[in-house]
Amino acid sequence: MNPDISLERENASFNPEILTNILDGGAEKTRRRREIESLVISDPDFQHEDLNFLSRSERYDAAVRKSAQMILKLREYGISDPEEIYSYKSVAKGVYQEPFGVHYVMFMPTLNSQCTAEQRKKWIPLAESFHMLGTYAQTELGHGTHIRALETTATYDPSTQEFVLNSPTISSIKWWPGGLGKTSNHAIVLAQLYTQGKCHGLHAFITPIRCMKTHMPLPGVVVGDIGPKFGFDEVDNGYLKLENVRIPRENMLMKYAKVEPDGTYVKPPSDKLTYGTMVFIRSMIVGESARALSKSCTIAIRYSAVRHQSELRPGEPEPQILDYQTQQYKLFPLLATAYAFHFVGQYMSKTYHRISGDINQGDFSELPELHALSAGLKAFTTWAANTGIEVCRMSCGGHGYSRCSSLPDIYVTFTPTCTYEGENTVMMLQTARYLVKSYKQARAGQQLTGIVSYLNEPQNRIQPHSVSSRPTVVSINDLACLVEAYKFRAAKLVEIAAKNLQAELQHSKSNEDAWNNSSIDLVRASDAHCHYVVVKLFAAKLSEIGDTAVHSVLSTLALLYALHGVAQNSGDFLQAGLLSVPQLAQISQRLKGLLSELRPNAVALVDAFDYRDEMLNSVLGRYDGNVYEHMFEWAMRSPLNHTEVHESHHKYLKPLQSKL
Amino acid sequence: MNPDISLERENASFNPEILTNILDGGAEKTRRRREIESLVISDPDFQHEDLNFLSRSERYDAAVRKSAQMILKLREYGISDPEEIYSYKSVAKGVYQEPFGVHYVMFMPTLNSQCTAEQRKKWIPLAESFHMLGTYAQTELGHGTHIRALETTATYDPSTQEFVLNSPTISSIKWWPGGLGKTSNHAIVLAQLYTQGKCHGLHAFITPIRCMKTHMPLPGVVVGDIGPKFGFDEVDNGYLKLENVRIPRENMLMKYAKVEPDGTYVKPPSDKLTYGTMVFIRSMIVGESARALSKSCTIAIRYSAVRHQSELRPGEPEPQILDYQTQQYKLFPLLATAYAFHFVGQYMSKTYHRISGDINQGDFSELPELHALSAGLKAFTTWAANTGIEVCRMSCGGHGYSRCSSLPDIYVTFTPTCTYEGENTVMMLQTARYLVKSYKQARAGQQLTGIVSYLNEPQNRIQPHSVSSRPTVVSINDLACLVEAYKFRAAKLVEIAAKNLQAELQHSKSNEDAWNNSSIDLVRASDAHCHYVVVKLFAAKLSEIGDTAVHSVLSTLALLYALHGVAQNSGDFLQAGLLSVPQLAQISQRLKGLLSELRPNAVALVDAFDYRDEMLNSVLGRYDGNVYEHMFEWAMRSPLNHTEVHESHHKYLKPLQSKL
Repeated sequence: MNPDISLERENASFNPEILTNILDGGAEKTRRRREIESLVISDPDFQHEDLNFLSRSERYDAAVRKSAQMILKLREYGISDPEEIYSYKSVAKGVYQEPFGVHYVMFMPTLNSQCTAEQRKKWIPLAESFHMLGTYAQTELGHGTHIRALETTATYDPSTQEFVLNSPTISSIKWWPGGLGKTSNHAIVLAQLYTQGKCHGLHAFITPIRCMKTHMPLPGVVVGDIGPKFGFDEVDNGYLKLENVRIPRENMLMKYAKVEPDGTYVKPPSDKLTYGTMVFIRSMIVGESARALSKSCTIAIRYSAVRHQSELRPGEPEPQILDYQTQQYKLFPLLATAYAFHFVGQYMSKTYHRISGDINQGDFSELPELHALSAGLKAFTTWAANTGIEVCRMSCGGHGYSRCSSLPDIYVTFTPTCTYEGENTVMMLQTARYLVKSYKQARAGQQLTGIVSYLNEPQNRIQPHSVSSRPTVVSINDLACLVEAYKFRAAKLVEIAAKNLQAELQHSKSNEDAWNNSSIDLVRASDAHCHYVVVKLFAAKLSEIGDTAVHSVLSTLALLYALHGVAQNSGDFLQAGLLSVPQLAQISQRLKGLLSELRPNAVALVDAFDYRDEMLNSVLGRYDGNVYEHMFEWAMRSPLNHTEVHESHHKYLKPLQSKL
Repeated sequence: MNPDISLERENASFNPEILTNILDGGAEKTRRRREIESLVISDPDFQHEDLNFLSRSERYDAAVRKSAQMILKLREYGISDPEEIYSYKSVAKGVYQEPFGVHYVMFMPTLNSQCTAEQRKKWIPLAESFHMLGTYAQTELGHGTHIRALETTATYDPSTQEFVLNSPTISSIKWWPGGLGKTSNHAIVLAQLYTQGKCHGLHAFITPIRCMKTHMPLPGVVVGDIGPKFGFDEVDNGYLKLENVRIPRENMLMKYAKVEPDGTYVKPPSDKLTYGTMVFIRSMIVGESARALSKSCTIAIRYSAVRHQSELRPGEPEPQILDYQTQQYKLFPLLATAYAFHFVGQYMSKTYHRISGDINQGDFSELPELHALSAGLKAFTTWAANTGIEVCRMSCGGHGYSRCSSLPDIYVTFTPTCTYEGENTVMMLQTARYLVKSYKQARAGQQLTGIVSYLNEPQNRIQPHSVSSRPTVVSINDLACLVEAYKFRAAKLVEIAAKNLQAELQHSKSNEDAWNNSSIDLVRASDAHCHYVVVKLFAAKLSEIGDTAVHSVLSTLALLYALHGVAQNSGDFLQAGLLSVPQLAQISQRLKGLLSELRPNAVALVDAFDYRDEMLNSVLGRYDGNVYEHMFEWAMRSPLNHTEVHESHHKYLKPLQSKL
């Protein structure tokens, strides 16, 4: 154990185990999670070379092998609880993905929710035994988030009782689905349904794409890998071009909408029924933001504790880089953000489960708010985590750039969340639509419920010219007061956006132009709303914490999160009259004080995330802090070192020298 | 040609060719650059498979081949002007690096500047004929930017007149030098010189590391590749461990410092002599920031012109995504930044050449200012470009994540500039040291010269409490006025940092603690100073432009750059009393107006950067806008598509299915 990092742990003011239990949701959950993680770590079948040393094809091969192993092992151990499966896979996959991911996350759930009883009987056993390996083919070359414009067609032919699937244009080729390229033999294809000469919009069709015996593409199917990406090397994101592919009528998922044998279309009872999965996945991404950022903070903070650099005091040994104020200023607000997002993730997961209970009872009343919240928070947290991972990487100096730090892998695996499941800017605008609608309702005297009820509050009616005469609202040491300030800032920015939208409507040709011409303001309003929700939920979490020492350190983190956000957006708070100019200097000073307060607990705070070395796969983030010897050992395994002299020397350099 | 992009070009209000000439420094330079670029593009020897489809070892192999070809071709064509060589290599390398990079950029220049006449005679011909292929081994596992703490030792042994080189610790192993792992047979090793029992600090030693015949590592030399990185796959960044490696006394570079045969050390006449190269490279990085960002903008803006998505007006065709205000708000400020950085890069290059003329005459007077400016601007521009590339990538939706967009490659190749040649935060603090020193001189009544002379101006003495009574300085449509506002903001933030530092000195144990405890403020001051310099230089450039149409569009860009910066840092401007709260709303509106004004010229503005398709290597950024068909064609070449059924199917899936 590196002595610096041991000392950090001795000096912490709280017991990280208690905090780990809070993050897990109880001591028993921590115990069980660790038990499951150990199953992978102690399993020789999961030992393998670092994927970074392999070619793309070898990485894919290794990932398929691992996926197959996980299936067998989970059944062997009898692990079937989704949370426990998640824990098991988290260790086995590390920071990577699996080619079977979409089979679990989209293909199976769609079968489960949209099959008729008869369809279930046919398809579910095939999918559960992996004779049918599936993907979810929605996104096309030309369209992603705007799904209504997808171009793939499924035309019903009553003469044979079949659907004929086609990719009518280049831009209609299915593109991006995970596992589509090489792994899957079936796809749920989202296509525009045509029957009796009419288009009925998007529907889902179980489409065989490869022979279940030979795995060769079926006639009319052009399928393959879309080529190398920024990350996801181990996944065969694919393309799919359909040329008059015929599937039986029974392959349309018919629990809700139906096509009768004669081609008569039967509408679904509600269009909200397919809405839930999307909300669920976006809610889950909030938790993923927390995990990606907390892994990155773990690596950067542990490394900063063992790395010594430069001089603070002449003649004295080089200080740990964690003692530099600029390093603390980079990392501690991110650490605070990681905690904030963990608690927001817990809240989203709890809320989703509560509301989906209501939905199962036919009560959709809370769905619009959850939809708006999950869209905005998905964007807010993924953007923040995305930027934060890179700050962590660069805070490790040059070594963060090495794949041995794991930070490049964390980044490239995480960054697609800003785009998939709804592009972030579009998500922010969806939330804005809900905020503007709520604002108008509040103006019309309606009493709002839920998280937007602040739009009813009179403080919202801040007049721009009365600002200087209003007393300053914020007491910068009082978290409750800061929560209020974030609330008023959000209210102010929603009001500005709504008023600008109103003004635009008076000049614009259409509602849509007015909306577009206000969209910068609308995104800003959503951002402020989400920021408020995060600060509020972080503050609320504190009241649940009994342990004094943990309560104290989390309170410091929450205050840092809130004040850092005020400093970063000081123009907004000044503009809303929530802050006075002299307070800016006080906030700067207070932030420095908070960094110093957190300094002794920084390593313990990342230890509490409880990521095993096997999950981080990072030389810089090792629990024991023995970084440099392992970096050297890792480098020597680089494939370029398999021979002393690379063949290019003989092929190109010797001839060159002879010519000069 | 895609009709959308043709229409964009028809609708531009200016002739991009004139702007290209301005960027190149004249029409003749444009002509010659294109001529040189065509030499590569038309050369069948430079046709090759996309590097993204190759393994690491194949990529390295291809890069060595290309490096060797470039040498022969450049000699064949008789191209020897450094700018022309740069143009040639830019096309040949595309967005990638070459393993011989350090040989040209560091090894040869160091030999040229630090060899004695006798040494030159021996080494230069060997280096020019590539019998000696060299790298510059400075950075170690444990130390980068703080070079004084490097641990490698060179101990003089007068009995044999040799230096004995050693890596005394794990952390002293040389790490990161480009071309060190497999390519080079010599390294200039930076080591602590010991002679006659005394350490004389860092000196440079020509060290043979591989046999010039067999290319095998020499005795005592442990050398290899440091393993895969975020990018730079084609470069063999290496490690070097030295175990009692003996080199003759003559291998120390002795133009300035010397060791006599008996071991007597002779000091160099000035410690500023090795200072110049560093300043030069940092100055050049400013131009690299401009190039990386302008390439990214070219790709994102061209793609945004051909990509149609979602609905603005119901029933009408989907609009180009460039028509979305949020898309414009992401991309146009970056486009403005790219232009700003091009002009700053031109200024830095011109200034460097002027000052290095002075230095050759023994006049070092302007070096400290250039040193401070190059450090800060290197950090300021690389951070901004680094963030901007990723914004461009994500503005392309999912397809930005594909390697076919080229944006991942641009990012991973560029991002090390934030760390190498001086870690950015350290660079900002070096500039801050100069600013604080200048501030103190100004306070002491000294008249400052050069760019910091604004610290003399009385407006600098803004009193915090008089803010509300001061008239508002900024007229938001007047660029000259905005330049002034940036100046006063910088002055204010330098003052805040200097005063905080002063206050800390009264509580702190030492100067160093006080400095550390003020470092957040100091970085902020440097940032504001650099921002001022960029706005000022952009504004100054406008006065040189004769063509009315080009002048007009560049003026709009400059105003956008300046106002966007004000909006992003509005707290600072409000705090300094340079802006009033009601002006914030005016700025928001004005920014929207500027986006609309730029919209018709966006494609022409990126065309003016004049990057050939072969240099961008981006399917999304194609000049002809024919994106989707080429994306499909590119994907089909993916190595995973070489066989219809991947072997993993038979190895893992078939057995799995049989077990379930």
